Amino acid sequence: MAKQTVLGIDIGGSLTKIGLVSKDGHILDKKVFETEAEKPFSVFMIKLKSEVEALILKQNSDIKIIAVGVGAPNANPYSGQIENPPNLKWGKAIPLLETIKKAFKLPVFIANDANAAALGELIFGSAKGMKNFVTLTLGTGLGSGIITDGKLLIGEHGAAGEIGHVNVDPQGRMCNCGLQGCLETYASVTGIKRTVFELLSEMREDSVLRTISFSEMTGTDISKAALAGDLIALNAFEKTGKILGSKMADTVAHLDPEAFIISGGLSKAGDILLKPILNNMEKYLFSAYKGKIKVLLSNATSSDAVLGPAALAWVSLEAKY
Amino acid sequence: MAKQTVLGIDIGGSLTKIGLVSKDGHILDKKVFETEAEKPFSVFMIKLKSEVEALILKQNSDIKIIAVGVGAPNANPYSGQIENPPNLKWGKAIPLLETIKKAFKLPVFIANDANAAALGELIFGSAKGMKNFVTLTLGTGLGSGIITDGKLLIGEHGAAGEIGHVNVDPQGRMCNCGLQGCLETYASVTGIKRTVFELLSEMREDSVLRTISFSEMTGTDISKAALAGDLIALNAFEKTGKILGSKMADTVAHLDPEAFIISGGLSKAGDILLKPILNNMEKYLFSAYKGKIKVLLSNATSSDAVLGPAALAWVSLEAKY
Repeated sequence: MAKQTVLGIDIGGSLTKIGLVSKDGHILDKKVFETEAEKPFSVFMIKLKSEVEALILKQNSDIKIIAVGVGAPNANPYSGQIENPPNLKWGKAIPLLETIKKAFKLPVFIANDANAAALGELIFGSAKGMKNFVTLTLGTGLGSGIITDGKLLIGEHGAAGEIGHVNVDPQGRMCNCGLQGCLETYASVTGIKRTVFELLSEMREDSVLRTISFSEMTGTDISKAALAGDLIALNAFEKTGKILGSKMADTVAHLDPEAFIISGGLSKAGDILLKPILNNMEKYLFSAYKGKIKVLLSNATSSDAVLGPAALAWVSLEAKY
Repeated sequence: MAKQTVLGIDIGGSLTKIGLVSKDGHILDKKVFETEAEKPFSVFMIKLKSEVEALILKQNSDIKIIAVGVGAPNANPYSGQIENPPNLKWGKAIPLLETIKKAFKLPVFIANDANAAALGELIFGSAKGMKNFVTLTLGTGLGSGIITDGKLLIGEHGAAGEIGHVNVDPQGRMCNCGLQGCLETYASVTGIKRTVFELLSEMREDSVLRTISFSEMTGTDISKAALAGDLIALNAFEKTGKILGSKMADTVAHLDPEAFIISGGLSKAGDILLKPILNNMEKYLFSAYKGKIKVLLSNATSSDAVLGPAALAWVSLEAKY
């Protein structure tokens, strides 16, 4: 009998990842290609279809794809559309669900990329067996997904879990979303870079980070500097963890989760980030939660990005979702 | 056949309310008595039992009580206990569920009072038919309950929905809970009173509120003054609504609810409170939510407090909970 798999598709602003995933979370095969988000959506669809066909043809074993899961920025499971995506130039309301259904003639399930990632952690990842947790992906922005009572929290309008846009400071940094002082302008790779430049302006200490331009500086540069004891970099992690930790305490006051699962580029810094997060979260926790909330680093890497959409497809097939 | 009812019990720091409630939310009869929280829990139980027996004996129609629902501050449905209640001098862990079960020999369901109130709004109140909403009770403190996907959000440790302890300002007002700058120190009857006294110290305007001491001032005094155009009072409502509205935007970024249901003493001020809430919530909302979130005043009054615990009993019997 042909082995049942699902097709997981993770659409990002620069890269799209596709993969064939078995029910136990084994990635049979995967492929990464450029999204080319500046060209029309129809061009993307032609490319996606041919890449998927090539991936299937490559398989030696007998497989049967039974569903498709898609994670994309601003994808709304209720409308079936990608709505006002900031990094895709495909229009204001892209009919993602219908178009993918037509292309592959299979059941299709879509979700916001960060929400799909939370399902990936639940079904295949660091949160297996948990019923209440929150994922925070610290990449270019801050993506989040909320699992309550074993299920993805979707909300009334399909847009729950935008913790990156919780307000830190009404007079704070300008956010890509049009608001001011959003959490992701502080707690993300871009956010810590902004903090580094703030500190470079305020502090007098020498730092390797003084030799790198804003455009060129990466999260890895900052992590490396911090691990080497660079004061500016260490200070930036301290500030980032402090802001994120205090806001995580607010998240706990809403959801009372078992754990936070931290992933994304910034999470690679490990304890340098985790310590200030934990200290500050704990400090601001309401008594009922003190000492009870775990903060864990995800095992997932960006090459596993198809696991989220694949998990979405598997749980949706089982109508858990 | 005897009419099926549930017994609803709302235990408060000063008053306890009991009532017999039918499945359609009709309160057949009710009684209010003093909790006397300074005496031992066993004394309270003797009083509760005799008050319930008297209430049942009073009924002319043939009724059958099939379950008991109890709402109490810090009641935890997982442990069955009231845990560290600030206003009840009954100890750190009161075995509420077991004791009430023994006393009445009926199925008993317990919840945090604010969470029970959210179920009351869902089953009998202003949120009937809604699937995703948040209740905010602006009384002595700020109580909150969260309904997602038609169910009460309980959380991993039985303590979800403590929005009153979200942080407004780490250098802000001291809270009864031991933290500093909690939302309820600003957005509650006590909170607005503190704001009035801050404004009395800062502003020069004449005000009727200058003639009332801190101990004597009530929420009604402040509402009345505001309705009469008193500048200090109006300013206090503006400040309260501003802080609450901005934090409600953070709640939306987590939960994406259909609506907030506002109740409690402060909600009687109506538009004077609602307008600054709405303006400021809208201002801080992430684009996906703008123009979509309702803020409604509850129809419930404090004399309906048994409806929450009764709703808890009814939904628990149907295993929806």
